[in-house]
Amino acid sequence: MKLRVKPLDLEAGGKFIVVLNRDDAEDLGASALSRVKVSAAGRELTAIVNVAIESIGRGYIGVYNEVKKYLNLREGDTVDVEAAHFPLSVYYIRNKLSGRKLAYEEIFEIVRDVVSGNLSEIEIAAFITALHTFGLDLDEATSLSMAMVETGNKLDLKKPLIVDKHSIGGVPGDKTTLLVVPIIAASGLTIPKSSSRSITSAAGTADRAEVLMPVTLDIEEMREVVEKTNGCIVWGGALDLAPADDIFIRVEHPLSIDPLLLPSIMSKKKAVGANLLVIDIPTGRGTKIKTIGEADLLAKDFIELGRRLGIKVQCAVTYGEQPVGYAVGPALEAMEALNTIMGKSQAYDLIDKATHIAGILLEMSGRVNGGGDKIAMEILRSGKAERKLREIIAAQGGDPNIKPDDIALGSERFTVCSKRDGVILWIDNASIVEAARLAGAPKDKGAGILLHKKIGDKVSEGESLVTIFAERGSKLERAISIFEEFPAIGVGDRMEMLIHEIRERPVAKKTFILER
Amino acid sequence: MKLRVKPLDLEAGGKFIVVLNRDDAEDLGASALSRVKVSAAGRELTAIVNVAIESIGRGYIGVYNEVKKYLNLREGDTVDVEAAHFPLSVYYIRNKLSGRKLAYEEIFEIVRDVVSGNLSEIEIAAFITALHTFGLDLDEATSLSMAMVETGNKLDLKKPLIVDKHSIGGVPGDKTTLLVVPIIAASGLTIPKSSSRSITSAAGTADRAEVLMPVTLDIEEMREVVEKTNGCIVWGGALDLAPADDIFIRVEHPLSIDPLLLPSIMSKKKAVGANLLVIDIPTGRGTKIKTIGEADLLAKDFIELGRRLGIKVQCAVTYGEQPVGYAVGPALEAMEALNTIMGKSQAYDLIDKATHIAGILLEMSGRVNGGGDKIAMEILRSGKAERKLREIIAAQGGDPNIKPDDIALGSERFTVCSKRDGVILWIDNASIVEAARLAGAPKDKGAGILLHKKIGDKVSEGESLVTIFAERGSKLERAISIFEEFPAIGVGDRMEMLIHEIRERPVAKKTFILER
Repeated sequence: MKLRVKPLDLEAGGKFIVVLNRDDAEDLGASALSRVKVSAAGRELTAIVNVAIESIGRGYIGVYNEVKKYLNLREGDTVDVEAAHFPLSVYYIRNKLSGRKLAYEEIFEIVRDVVSGNLSEIEIAAFITALHTFGLDLDEATSLSMAMVETGNKLDLKKPLIVDKHSIGGVPGDKTTLLVVPIIAASGLTIPKSSSRSITSAAGTADRAEVLMPVTLDIEEMREVVEKTNGCIVWGGALDLAPADDIFIRVEHPLSIDPLLLPSIMSKKKAVGANLLVIDIPTGRGTKIKTIGEADLLAKDFIELGRRLGIKVQCAVTYGEQPVGYAVGPALEAMEALNTIMGKSQAYDLIDKATHIAGILLEMSGRVNGGGDKIAMEILRSGKAERKLREIIAAQGGDPNIKPDDIALGSERFTVCSKRDGVILWIDNASIVEAARLAGAPKDKGAGILLHKKIGDKVSEGESLVTIFAERGSKLERAISIFEEFPAIGVGDRMEMLIHEIRERPVAKKTFILER
Repeated sequence: MKLRVKPLDLEAGGKFIVVLNRDDAEDLGASALSRVKVSAAGRELTAIVNVAIESIGRGYIGVYNEVKKYLNLREGDTVDVEAAHFPLSVYYIRNKLSGRKLAYEEIFEIVRDVVSGNLSEIEIAAFITALHTFGLDLDEATSLSMAMVETGNKLDLKKPLIVDKHSIGGVPGDKTTLLVVPIIAASGLTIPKSSSRSITSAAGTADRAEVLMPVTLDIEEMREVVEKTNGCIVWGGALDLAPADDIFIRVEHPLSIDPLLLPSIMSKKKAVGANLLVIDIPTGRGTKIKTIGEADLLAKDFIELGRRLGIKVQCAVTYGEQPVGYAVGPALEAMEALNTIMGKSQAYDLIDKATHIAGILLEMSGRVNGGGDKIAMEILRSGKAERKLREIIAAQGGDPNIKPDDIALGSERFTVCSKRDGVILWIDNASIVEAARLAGAPKDKGAGILLHKKIGDKVSEGESLVTIFAERGSKLERAISIFEEFPAIGVGDRMEMLIHEIRERPVAKKTFILER
C-alpha cells in the first residue's frame, strides 16, 4: 500500500512508531500494535502501528521522528507499507524460551532484527529474561559478541598491538581510566578507549571526561585522535559500536538484570580491534560482585571468551567496598583525576589502582618484564602522563591548559559532620551514589559528593565526613535527606553486630548496577 | 505539574500513552519512555511518555484515546502530572526473575498494576517469561487465580448450584459448548457460560455462537439471561471477568507461551461462581496436549487448583487428532451445531462428546446416579435441548426461529478431491486451521472448511475431501495454496513411515494454540 508521509513531531524514545488511518490499517490486516514494514528509497524498517480515526486520513501515514530520521522522510513523500509477519528471529527466541541453546546464525538474526527494529519490546524482554533465567553458555556468549560486532561499526587502526582496559563497574568515584589511558598512551602503546555514560551510577567515564574535553566523537574523529596521540577517551554512544547493546540496556534496566554483561563488554573491545585487555572487577559488598570467589569465576569467563574472540585478557580483582579516591560526581571526579595526574592529590587508592592496571597492560604487551606498576608510576610521577592527557584533550577539541580551578563545582553545598568520635567502619556505596544522583549527578555536572574520610580514618565529633555539592537548592535538600534517613557512613570504635531488624515482610529493593 | 489536555485522536492498542513537551518532560525528570502518573477528578493512571518538540507546547499534554477515555477527559481540561516511580510490583517481578516464589500479596499487587496500566510491556513480558521458565506452583496458581478474580467483575447468581464446562482448546471445529449448554440448562441446572473469541484458531465459541445470536452482553444482561433460561452463551470480553488476562494474552501471543493457562481458566469460572466444573482436555498430535500422560498430569493440577478455589472439578480427556464434527469456521460450525441439536446431522463424534461432557456434569450434580450421558442423549433426542437453545437465543436478543438455511456461508468455494483410492489415515489440525484462517475465518464468519471425510473413511480417486468456503476470491486462493503446499489430509492404504526429511537446519515453526 502506498501512503503519503505526514511527520508528527513525536518521539518515542528510540522506537519506530507510525500512525495509520484505522481503515487503511484494517485493509492491511494491521490493527493497533501490530507491525508494518515501511520502505522508502531503498531503506526499510519495521514499525509499530498506532491508529487514528480522523487526524490521519486514508492514504496518509503519520511518522514519529525516529522513523522520519531513519528513512530520511519529508512531508508528502510516498512510502510503501505492508503488513509485517513475525520475523524468523521470533521463532529463535521461542526456542530459547524452551531452554534450547542457540546457534550463531540464530543469534545473529536476533541481534540484526533488534538493531533494525523488527522485534518488539515484548520479544526483546522475553529474550533477555530467558537469557537471564536459563543462562547463556560460552558458545552463546561468543556468538552474541560476534553478532553485536558484525551489526555495528568497527575501528580499523593500522597498528599491530592495540590494548584496552575496562571496568565492569559498580564502585563509585572510579576515575581510573582518566589516568590509565594517558599512562599507556605515553608508554607508546595504543589505547582507543570508548566509555559509557552513567545509567544507574553517579557518573560514567564519558561523563567525567566530558568535564575536561568533548567526548562525542564519531568513529572517524576517534581514529584521528588515536593516530595522533596513541589514545583517546570518547563516549561510545556516538560511535555505533555494537548498537544492539543500547537497545538491550533499555530493556535490562527496568528488570534489573544484565545477562549480557560479558558479550556487551567484549563486543565493544573486539569492535575497536583490541588484542590485549585488562578487565577490572571491583569486588566487595556494595559492588556488583560481592565475593572474590564470584570475581574469579567471572574472570575465568572473560578470559575464555577473550580467547575465543582473539583477545588476550587478564583480570584485576580490585577492592570495591568504598569509592575510589574521595570524589563522586562528574566535575568533582574530573578535578580529582586532574589533580592526581598533576601530582597534587593524596588519593593513594586511585593511584595504586591506576598504576597496577596500567602495569598489567605494560607487562602483557611484552614491553617490560615484571614491575609494570613501577614503570606506570614512573610515567605518572615524571609528568609524561599529564602531558599525554593534555595532548589528548587538545586532540579531542578541549583546552589543553585546563587547570583544576577552572572546573565548576555546584555552588549549593552542605557538609555532613560526625556525631561521635571513632573510626570510619564502613561506607555504603549505594547511599553515596543515591545522594550524588539526588544532588543532580550525572546530569548536573557540578553535583556530587566529596568524602573527607575513608574507611579506617579516625574522626572526632563534629568533624566533616562528606560535603554534598549541588547546582540547585532543592536538589541539595533531597541529597541531605538521604544522610538523615540512613547513615551512609558508619562511625564507631567497635563492631556493632545487628545489621538491621525485619519486623514485617520486607520489599527487597536491591540496588542494581547496570554500568559496564 | 498541572497541564492542559489536548486530545490526539490516536490509539495504541490499549496502552496508555501521553505526549509532553520536551522541556516539561525534562522538568518532570521523565524523558521518552518513562512513566508519569496522570490524575484528574479522582481517577488516575500511569502512562508512557512520548515527547514532542513543537506540536505540543509547554503546559499542554497530548493524550491518546485510551487515556482520554479512562480519565474521561475533554480538550482544555487540566490534569495533574508527576513522575511515576517504579511501582512496588516491579520489585516482586524482579524476585520472580531470580526464581523466588511469590506470595499472594505480591501476586495481587502485580495483577492490580497490570490491570491499571502501571506496568510496561517489558515488565509484563519478563513476568510471563519467568513464570514460563521457572514454572509456577499450585500456591502461585491459586494466588494468580484469586488475584485475577479480585481485580475484575463477579457474577452473583442467587443459586445454590452453578455448573460450568470449559475446553482448554486446541481441536478445530469444537462446537460442543453449543450443545452442552442447552442440554444442561434444559435439565434444570444453571450454566452461565462465557466464552472467548478466536486468538490463534479458526473460531472461538463466542465467534460460533454469534452466528446464532448476539453474544456481546454486559454482566447485568448476562445475569438476566441466566435467571430466565438457566443458561447463556456469551462473549467473555465484555464482562470484565478477570480483565488482567486480556493483557497477559497480548504478551503471551507473540511469545507462543501460556504459563497462565490454569489460573486464566479457573479465575473466570470462580468469577461466575461455579461450584461444579468439567474441563475438557483434547489430546493427541495436533492439539495442545500431545499425550494421555500429559493430559492426566494437567487434569491433576486442574482438580487440585479447583479444590483450593472451592470448585469441584472433573476432567474429560478427549480424542483430538481431527476436527470435531465436519465443519470448521464460525458459520459452518453454527450450522452444524444447529443441525445436530435439531436431529439432522450425522456428526457422531460431536454428539458423543457433548453427551458425555453433559453427562459428567449431571452426575457431578447428584441429580442422576450414573448413566449421565444417556440422560443427556435423551434430552438432546427429545428436542428439549433444541427448545432450550432457542429460548437462550431469544433471551440474548436473537431470532428463536433461526433455521440452518438462514445461515450465510461464503459464496466463494473450492472442493479439494482425493488424488487416489484409499483410506483417510490422518488429518492435520494445524493445516485445516491455517486454511480456514487464510480463507477469512474467524473475521469473515462465512469462511471455513467443510470436511467430507474423516479418519478411517474410505475414499476413491476424484472424490471430495474438503470444501473451502470464503467470502472473497483472493482469500479463497490463499487457502487453496495450503492444500497444494502440504497435504492436510493423508490418504493411503498402508502406513508410510517417513514423516519428513531434514536436509538443512530447519526453522521450527511450531504451531501455537493460545485458545483457552
